[in-house]
Amino acid sequence: MKDLRFVLVNTTHPGNVGATARAMKTMALSELRLVSPKRYPSVEATAMASGADDLLAAAPVCAGLDEALEGCRLVLGTSARPRGISVPEIRPDEAAKLLVEESQKWPVALMFGREAHGLTNEEMLRCQYLVNIPANPDFSSLNLAAAVQVLAYEVRKAALDETWNNVSTAEHEPADDKVMESFFGHLRQTMEEIGFLDSRQPTKIMARLRRLYGRARPDEREINILRGIFSASQRRHNHSSKST
Amino acid sequence: MKDLRFVLVNTTHPGNVGATARAMKTMALSELRLVSPKRYPSVEATAMASGADDLLAAAPVCAGLDEALEGCRLVLGTSARPRGISVPEIRPDEAAKLLVEESQKWPVALMFGREAHGLTNEEMLRCQYLVNIPANPDFSSLNLAAAVQVLAYEVRKAALDETWNNVSTAEHEPADDKVMESFFGHLRQTMEEIGFLDSRQPTKIMARLRRLYGRARPDEREINILRGIFSASQRRHNHSSKST
Repeated sequence: MKDLRFVLVNTTHPGNVGATARAMKTMALSELRLVSPKRYPSVEATAMASGADDLLAAAPVCAGLDEALEGCRLVLGTSARPRGISVPEIRPDEAAKLLVEESQKWPVALMFGREAHGLTNEEMLRCQYLVNIPANPDFSSLNLAAAVQVLAYEVRKAALDETWNNVSTAEHEPADDKVMESFFGHLRQTMEEIGFLDSRQPTKIMARLRRLYGRARPDEREINILRGIFSASQRRHNHSSKST
Repeated sequence: MKDLRFVLVNTTHPGNVGATARAMKTMALSELRLVSPKRYPSVEATAMASGADDLLAAAPVCAGLDEALEGCRLVLGTSARPRGISVPEIRPDEAAKLLVEESQKWPVALMFGREAHGLTNEEMLRCQYLVNIPANPDFSSLNLAAAVQVLAYEVRKAALDETWNNVSTAEHEPADDKVMESFFGHLRQTMEEIGFLDSRQPTKIMARLRRLYGRARPDEREINILRGIFSASQRRHNHSSKST
């Protein structure tokens, strides 16, 4: 992402500028531009940036949109609710994809409006797309920095897309059929030796346990732990049988 | 989403509790539980809730996890970074899908840890899955309420997404948190009695077994079978101890 800008327009509370810098940095974004922020710079902004003050220090304060959007070939704007403006609306994930894709080729920008009134119609009309966060219709008042966090998160997801698709189930390697069969054999033998199957239906019990461990799909290390437990239990039992 | 809980564990700053309530409400979530928050209730919390104070007022303050997770059959925890803990990690969107889907059937919970240290290992081991927000590895310090906002947003997306189907986990009803905890207690006791833990690292072993059964998510009938096996094994052992 060479030049993927977040542009804050006319922000009222300097704390939100700082919190925006922090939210962006957590998602590895760095290009922030400020259009005529109120009461800025400010200690409040720096305090809220907490560790992202480098981003804040590098953020140009622009007199107007011309300067903030300079060179951008894709401009998006956030909009809390559809206002009958004739700009197509897209979802945050679609917006993120567009921004990431096109930022490989030219500067792109995502604008955030004022805390109280968002972007003006004029500002929205400057956008190719409006982004709408699907908030609770009865309580849609996302804090500015919270909206930035959500969009920055979607941008990061889009940027990581290929790499993190297969993170979750990566390193787990379920034991193979042979290991599982000998595990079930050992389990059954143990249950018999400790007298658990005596008054029960072995076939039904085994079927249930197979289903349970089939869902878990243990790896070999886990199988070894379980079989260790079986063996300990068998040793105790054999010891007991001999001593009685 | 009948009972989809967000659980804040040991939150230090009351402002974050309020901001969490606001973040949740913007995404149409309402079930918040607080485990031993510091300096709470507090005017700061109410101020930061700004309009979501109804949610705050309804949030039970719990003495511990037992109370906060009562009745939950799916427990997830957020984790800033993988810490070599043996609980499978999933993406926020995967987590959201699970939470929304299962909340149709039984209570589910997502836990958020302390601002400074997150969840303890013990708390993480209580989860079936850990959720990792893919933050900037060089600056992963998401504010607590920002993390809540991101997860709440994903939950809302999942709830609004009518395309996914819930065929897969149809009739299986996993045991709830309380049943699982007492199962793990029984398992550990049995392993101790049969001498399996003697020369091993109990904490590590228990962590591995928690991961294994966390994947399997046994239902109560299966838990009864497993505990029946433990009891049979214990009886033999106690018999053996008395006879020698």
